[in-house]
Amino acid sequence: MSEIRRIGIVGGTGPLGRGLAARLSYKYDVLIGSREETRAEGAAEEVSRLTGRKVRGATNLEAARACDSAILALPDLAASELLQEMEKELGGKLVISPIVPMEMKDGRFSYSPSDGSAAESVASILDRSRVAAAFHTVPAPKLLAIGEKLEYTVPVAAERRETFKEVATIVSSIQDLRPLYAGPLSSARTIEALTPLLLNLGRLNGMKNLSIRMV
Amino acid sequence: MSEIRRIGIVGGTGPLGRGLAARLSYKYDVLIGSREETRAEGAAEEVSRLTGRKVRGATNLEAARACDSAILALPDLAASELLQEMEKELGGKLVISPIVPMEMKDGRFSYSPSDGSAAESVASILDRSRVAAAFHTVPAPKLLAIGEKLEYTVPVAAERRETFKEVATIVSSIQDLRPLYAGPLSSARTIEALTPLLLNLGRLNGMKNLSIRMV
Repeated sequence: MSEIRRIGIVGGTGPLGRGLAARLSYKYDVLIGSREETRAEGAAEEVSRLTGRKVRGATNLEAARACDSAILALPDLAASELLQEMEKELGGKLVISPIVPMEMKDGRFSYSPSDGSAAESVASILDRSRVAAAFHTVPAPKLLAIGEKLEYTVPVAAERRETFKEVATIVSSIQDLRPLYAGPLSSARTIEALTPLLLNLGRLNGMKNLSIRMV
Repeated sequence: MSEIRRIGIVGGTGPLGRGLAARLSYKYDVLIGSREETRAEGAAEEVSRLTGRKVRGATNLEAARACDSAILALPDLAASELLQEMEKELGGKLVISPIVPMEMKDGRFSYSPSDGSAAESVASILDRSRVAAAFHTVPAPKLLAIGEKLEYTVPVAAERRETFKEVATIVSSIQDLRPLYAGPLSSARTIEALTPLLLNLGRLNGMKNLSIRMV
């Protein structure tokens, strides 16, 4: 549990990955990972232009190897195979899952984990990592809108409070985000389910990029 | 779907029931129901003293019979037997479920519906009523603290948007509460699960009466 300086964002070329890369680049050395190195480099250049901070691109495997801590900005289905490939590289490291298994049916999002929660599935594959769940409800467009205040609560699930504290340091490095400990990884089920709830509330009430604040 | 003037709060002698009675008494004629009429009358007197508005007590059956709309301020286990007794009285009426099936284990709350959500179970019993789910995340002590601002979001689940609109009128009668439509009753599962999440976040982070605001 040495200090975390370099964060690897696995599958980081999408809006959430780029948004987290942008916001975290002010404090951390950030590596965006992708299956294709050229795509990762393209996303990294885009983020660097946005923030004026140096962000680099790499393959997912290289990002997992070179980082002190990884964030898995992956769609649910992609996760398990890729994680098995990276299990060794991520051993002994803090791994944060913002993964939300979701389905869209009849214009409505629903939470659809195969079993328990995505975070628990991640932990069962990465059994040598410290796995936590966080960042599910922070809208990617808001992360990418550098300068916009993010007065949101970020519920964090992790088996141990020490792991929560490591995650809290990373979350708090993004101005105004407020991490709260939600308990063990089984709590991730309710936290992950917040995302389809927020998306449905947004669609049904004509609101964009809804997030959550516990008050 | 005539105008709602009289609201019956079934099982309304606990903190949530008294809190809702107090806040709703400014716009509605409120009846607090209980198995024992004397307990209902005691709670009604207490609320009347708090608000200066006339609130009456009655048996649950009488409250169900005399109201235009009912709120079920019941612990989960009590619900099904009692609801079967009141099924006829509540037929054709708007019925709001704030019920949250919860267990406490090892100092941690977990959501424990027998099947689907409490609101769906209520709807399966009261099949001649318009059932909606609301008010799960508004802390009872805050409702009872008359004068305190309640700047919270109240997610509402109901099969039809017309039913949501009826609920929204009731929710909005309490100053600063903001109702949002969350979709059909199956969404109640995620909404009900917010309560144990909030309770755990409160306990684990030293915060009291946490509620939720979608921003």
